[in-house]
Amino acid sequence: MSTALLTDRYELTMLDAALRSGRHDRECIFEVFARRLPEGRRYGIVGGTGRLLDLIAEFRFEDAELSWLRENSVVTPEALDWLADYRFRGNISGYREGDVYFPGSPLLVIDGTFAEAVILETLALSVLNYDSAIASAAARMVAAADGRPLSEMGSRRTGERSGVAAARAAYIAGFGATSNLEAGRSWGIPTMGTAAHSFTLLHDSEEEAFEAQVAALGPGTTLLVDTYDVTAAVELAVRVAGTGLGAVRIDSGDLPAQVAAVREQLDSLGAVNTRITVTNDLDEYTIAGLRAAPVDSFGVGTSVVTGSGHPAAGMVYKLVAHRDDTGEWVSVAKKSAAKATVGGRKRAVRSLSNGVAVAETIYVEDERQVRDDERELHVPLITAGVADDRWLGAAGVAAAREHRAAAVAELPVDALRLSRGEPAIPTVYL
Amino acid sequence: MSTALLTDRYELTMLDAALRSGRHDRECIFEVFARRLPEGRRYGIVGGTGRLLDLIAEFRFEDAELSWLRENSVVTPEALDWLADYRFRGNISGYREGDVYFPGSPLLVIDGTFAEAVILETLALSVLNYDSAIASAAARMVAAADGRPLSEMGSRRTGERSGVAAARAAYIAGFGATSNLEAGRSWGIPTMGTAAHSFTLLHDSEEEAFEAQVAALGPGTTLLVDTYDVTAAVELAVRVAGTGLGAVRIDSGDLPAQVAAVREQLDSLGAVNTRITVTNDLDEYTIAGLRAAPVDSFGVGTSVVTGSGHPAAGMVYKLVAHRDDTGEWVSVAKKSAAKATVGGRKRAVRSLSNGVAVAETIYVEDERQVRDDERELHVPLITAGVADDRWLGAAGVAAAREHRAAAVAELPVDALRLSRGEPAIPTVYL
Repeated sequence: MSTALLTDRYELTMLDAALRSGRHDRECIFEVFARRLPEGRRYGIVGGTGRLLDLIAEFRFEDAELSWLRENSVVTPEALDWLADYRFRGNISGYREGDVYFPGSPLLVIDGTFAEAVILETLALSVLNYDSAIASAAARMVAAADGRPLSEMGSRRTGERSGVAAARAAYIAGFGATSNLEAGRSWGIPTMGTAAHSFTLLHDSEEEAFEAQVAALGPGTTLLVDTYDVTAAVELAVRVAGTGLGAVRIDSGDLPAQVAAVREQLDSLGAVNTRITVTNDLDEYTIAGLRAAPVDSFGVGTSVVTGSGHPAAGMVYKLVAHRDDTGEWVSVAKKSAAKATVGGRKRAVRSLSNGVAVAETIYVEDERQVRDDERELHVPLITAGVADDRWLGAAGVAAAREHRAAAVAELPVDALRLSRGEPAIPTVYL
Repeated sequence: MSTALLTDRYELTMLDAALRSGRHDRECIFEVFARRLPEGRRYGIVGGTGRLLDLIAEFRFEDAELSWLRENSVVTPEALDWLADYRFRGNISGYREGDVYFPGSPLLVIDGTFAEAVILETLALSVLNYDSAIASAAARMVAAADGRPLSEMGSRRTGERSGVAAARAAYIAGFGATSNLEAGRSWGIPTMGTAAHSFTLLHDSEEEAFEAQVAALGPGTTLLVDTYDVTAAVELAVRVAGTGLGAVRIDSGDLPAQVAAVREQLDSLGAVNTRITVTNDLDEYTIAGLRAAPVDSFGVGTSVVTGSGHPAAGMVYKLVAHRDDTGEWVSVAKKSAAKATVGGRKRAVRSLSNGVAVAETIYVEDERQVRDDERELHVPLITAGVADDRWLGAAGVAAAREHRAAAVAELPVDALRLSRGEPAIPTVYL
């Protein structure tokens, strides 16, 4: 399925006008970056890169797209001819998916002609802005959970395809599983889930429902215990499933006292290995508030798939340099108030001191060698139009998840605080 | 493309367990509703219904889906057999897309067997929660713009497929156009857009860029005038395009004074019919703040596609009744703290007084006739598995947009205030 029309109209009208001026073939550098982090956040996590590479490969104008553009007079016949042959043949380098980022971090560097690069703007930003918003929020929840597993279960609170992307981004950020089956199929993410309140309500009694569930899914299942009375349901659950019951789920249990009472009850019934999972509109703050409670795992919905108050990462796609008629590179940047851009081709390193990040250092038009105490942040993503397959598919997701763990581990310890703060390290332009 | 795995795993495990208990075939009523509006909002707008009907038609378990479920032992072979034959054969009625809603409004009533209805939960909620969040936010912006046209241009700030849905929802809520080409193709929404800052920066001068754009797109185009100096660019724009210049766009122009200055400058240059469009991170409040400024149209991005602070509408999908073994209907509802549900099959009317809405009246298990001063809110959406084609495609979108205008016009005038408030009318259960 072509992704070519997932595009703002102005990209194609710019292409049209650039064909007219003859500037469409100028070699250009575009850059994706965020001017700032969401207010109070100390770091962001890059999400979406692997997905974007697939979507760029499908960014082709086939007959269906060309006909629609023609019938609606979106662009001239010359532009249609150009689009018919389009595929991205340039280079894209960028931060690894799962890496940490800060204000100004040059997350993608797109190197190609103006025409071939400008038309990827919307697609690139859609993917990175959404997926990074989710990964960034999810990483905070992972920190708050302090080693206890988290599952993503928010598909119902975001667009039906965004739900798949959210599951993927949350997993990269350290969640352990998702409820979303398509995310399991497409990206190899472990899936989870057993039953909702409707299953209990369908049956003539809670007992009948629990018996049916245990018969079908085994005693290791998770029984939902808050349809009617939690205490009665916990007792019933252990009676039906035995002390080998896998877990109980409390979907209204954000109160540490309630969780503690359920733990005590389970223990007194001999179900000492039965876990408690809590799933009631959690976010990083309520998760942190349950730190001392005997919760074994968390299910998070709305807040993770909506970026916990920040549903878009605020990244922009900007032209930062182009070659002039003599072949020289010219740095460019707009001057709009409060939206100024740093022009020029950039390289980025994370400056480290004893293995701890101390600065996001961005070299502008500077080809110096990376030093031992610097970690180079750009990797090749697409070279001469071909995606690097290390970042694709389930293997790419697994690699990003591992990389995220390493990149977060490099941060100063203050970075993981939930309270509002400044970016954990400064961004320095050299 | 099958939508069947855009589903939480627990729906299939519930199906499995219900097949085991034999309760899968019980006739059930599920209901979609929101327990509350986002804090401070006075009404919501239903979005997504037409999209959902298409997606339900594609909710089929084909070989690819069945194989994956089998290989991953998600459900038993019996459940796989059942899924292979699945299509929704029941009835769905609900609020018309574009209608207004309030806390408790029974937006969808799904009537079918437990098994066939329960597995649509995630898909139905994903679509309605996202699209309604966007439509609800967009309607407030439309009210704030007070008759001046709005364009949706936020595709880059939400997942790449959600951007299409957002364009559609904003249009239903009264926006006039979108930047998103796929929304134009899929839903017949007018598309707009001319150029970004990169187009100006690509050229050796602003003059060269403006000349190229006017040559390609004609003098009726919109020139972006804030890449460098606004005053100089406005003068240049009129010099290049003539006084017939269509519009100037200010992407950093949320200051009434700046807009007024540009208007004065355009008038003094003789470009009295050249319009001013403003596109800088607007939301309903900044739009309202420009009410006295000579802005001719607004472009809105991030805030509309993220629901202006409320990116998910908070709707839930609940079992409210089922037949028991004697064939009698039994109302059911869970008792969880703060999440209680009103059981039973519901009909909803908008009670009117002299054509103005005074209450959302919900009849529970009550078949009385609708009165003259009540507008019945439910229409058939799917009957015996077949979608009503009045709600589908571009025609469905156009109908929903018209219906939204009529439904909003019925509201008491206070409903359109932007300040935080209570729902504009009470929800009354009878």
